[in-house]
Amino acid sequence: MDASDPDADATEPTDGELACFEAGIKFGALYHQFAGTPVSPESAPSLETAIEESIENQPFCEDVSVEILTEKLAAEIDHVPASDSEGELGGGSLAEGEEASSGGYTELTGRFLEVEILVEYEGVEVLTRMEMEDGYPLMKVESVD
Amino acid sequence: MDASDPDADATEPTDGELACFEAGIKFGALYHQFAGTPVSPESAPSLETAIEESIENQPFCEDVSVEILTEKLAAEIDHVPASDSEGELGGGSLAEGEEASSGGYTELTGRFLEVEILVEYEGVEVLTRMEMEDGYPLMKVESVD
Amino acid sequence: MDASDPDADATEPTDGELACFEAGIKFGALYHQFAGTPVSPESAPSLETAIEESIENQPFCEDVSVEILTEKLAAEIDHVPASDSEGELGGGSLAEGEEASSGGYTELTGRFLEVEILVEYEGVEVLTRMEMEDGYPLMKVESVD
Amino acid sequence: MDASDPDADATEPTDGELACFEAGIKFGALYHQFAGTPVSPESAPSLETAIEESIENQPFCEDVSVEILTEKLAAEIDHVPASDSEGELGGGSLAEGEEASSGGYTELTGRFLEVEILVEYEGVEVLTRMEMEDGYPLMKVESVD
Repeated sequence: MDASDPDADATEPTDGELACFEAGIKFGALYHQFAGTPVSPESAPSLETAIEESIENQPFCEDVSVEILTEKLAAEIDHVPASDSEGELGGGSLAEGEEASSGGYTELTGRFLEVEILVEYEGVEVLTRMEMEDGYPLMKVESVD
Repeated sequence: MDASDPDADATEPTDGELACFEAGIKFGALYHQFAGTPVSPESAPSLETAIEESIENQPFCEDVSVEILTEKLAAEIDHVPASDSEGELGGGSLAEGEEASSGGYTELTGRFLEVEILVEYEGVEVLTRMEMEDGYPLMKVESVD
Repeated sequence: MDASDPDADATEPTDGELACFEAGIKFGALYHQFAGTPVSPESAPSLETAIEESIENQPFCEDVSVEILTEKLAAEIDHVPASDSEGELGGGSLAEGEEASSGGYTELTGRFLEVEILVEYEGVEVLTRMEMEDGYPLMKVESVD
Repeated sequence: MDASDPDADATEPTDGELACFEAGIKFGALYHQFAGTPVSPESAPSLETAIEESIENQPFCEDVSVEILTEKLAAEIDHVPASDSEGELGGGSLAEGEEASSGGYTELTGRFLEVEILVEYEGVEVLTRMEMEDGYPLMKVESVD
């Protein structure tokens, strides 16, 4: 290599690295597209399916499995006091995170989600997962195969 | 009126106005939560259901009806050339709007959507709709009842 | 009115109602576009400006004022334990809500936000606000003028 | 390893692979958090800054550079006919993609964006880029170093 080439030290990515890049894109997309979605234990199943089928559209994405933790969801909703919808001006819409008059709901966020994504790129399979660890959601690469 | 009251000229909102405010919140929420979601004719039904059930969680929201226009979706996807996934560096993920190797998809946006939302607030029913008009998606209030 | 007209009881919206519908759209859009954005006390000012200028693009939107409550943000970030980034597989990306190795951040959500939006539609001015009330964020119409 | 171990063929990820996974997460996050944001040539600079500073909060993210292609933005806005805001019911909010009465804007999407993200993970630097190629936005790994 020519020392005058500024990229002389750079390495072109391997198929494994590109497969992991693809897997990361899917995770970031899934999280930031759907975080914030209003969700209740009743609406969780349709949201799970929609997230799975939506992200599976993306290139190199073999399988997406989403579990919304409805027990945690229910516990969070129960902790929220009934809304004071009779304010001075006679109304007001509760922002997400509050109990709605028509039944409880909250916003989808990482602590209610377990996700597994399988990407295949040029014969390399990457299995990635997001789950709670020590009380926090962690995105990680399980295996590159 | 008391000149010392800075809000002396302001009118408190009527129930009809508050009902319309609530309806608007649902429309803005629906559009900006789900626009950008990867979608194909095959995944459109699960996304329709998830959007409906998600927004119906919100306060005062009686009914949400979402139709994703799969024929338009299919037409848009067909117009996109096959991706060049063999670039100089041996890979690359297509951003949304392109045909994916595993089948076509695009991003959800207004021109693929027909939405009807019914809000009831303090006995006032507001019916709102988003649909194409003169080639553009328009959000409007159909009736206040 | 003709009894055979199914819409005989429906009222066409007033300008005040349409103005409130428009104001609601802006609130829903603002919240669901930007909730979930990674934010720290350092990056909060640029996000405030971007949210304001973005939503001000929308029709009939005269003014948007966004305050991100950086003290609350800082308090939330301090409560999050240092991440365990040395898992079994040697890595892992923290989902939002956790302290990042390069400094703390969290996701933007309603409890970190105070927003005021002024809409003018056909001469009617609607002032709306989102702020904490009894520990929860509430979107409300301040005045219709 | 035991042949009965179903993971016998799986390889733990290398630092390069984990660095690429992290880089992918940032790209997916950036795209799906901010796509759909109302944007005009005037508001583009504040949005560029907010996107950069927001994503730079994420772990292992050394640098984010965002350019919104304001000339393309302006061209797209000019192609949109003036809105017909005087519909049968006397109003209606244009969904994104239409010219607003207060001046043109559109939704942020891939064809208006050039993005470069530099991630460093355990001493491995990954440079990634999204830009137009053959008329479509492509996310790719430039180098792993």
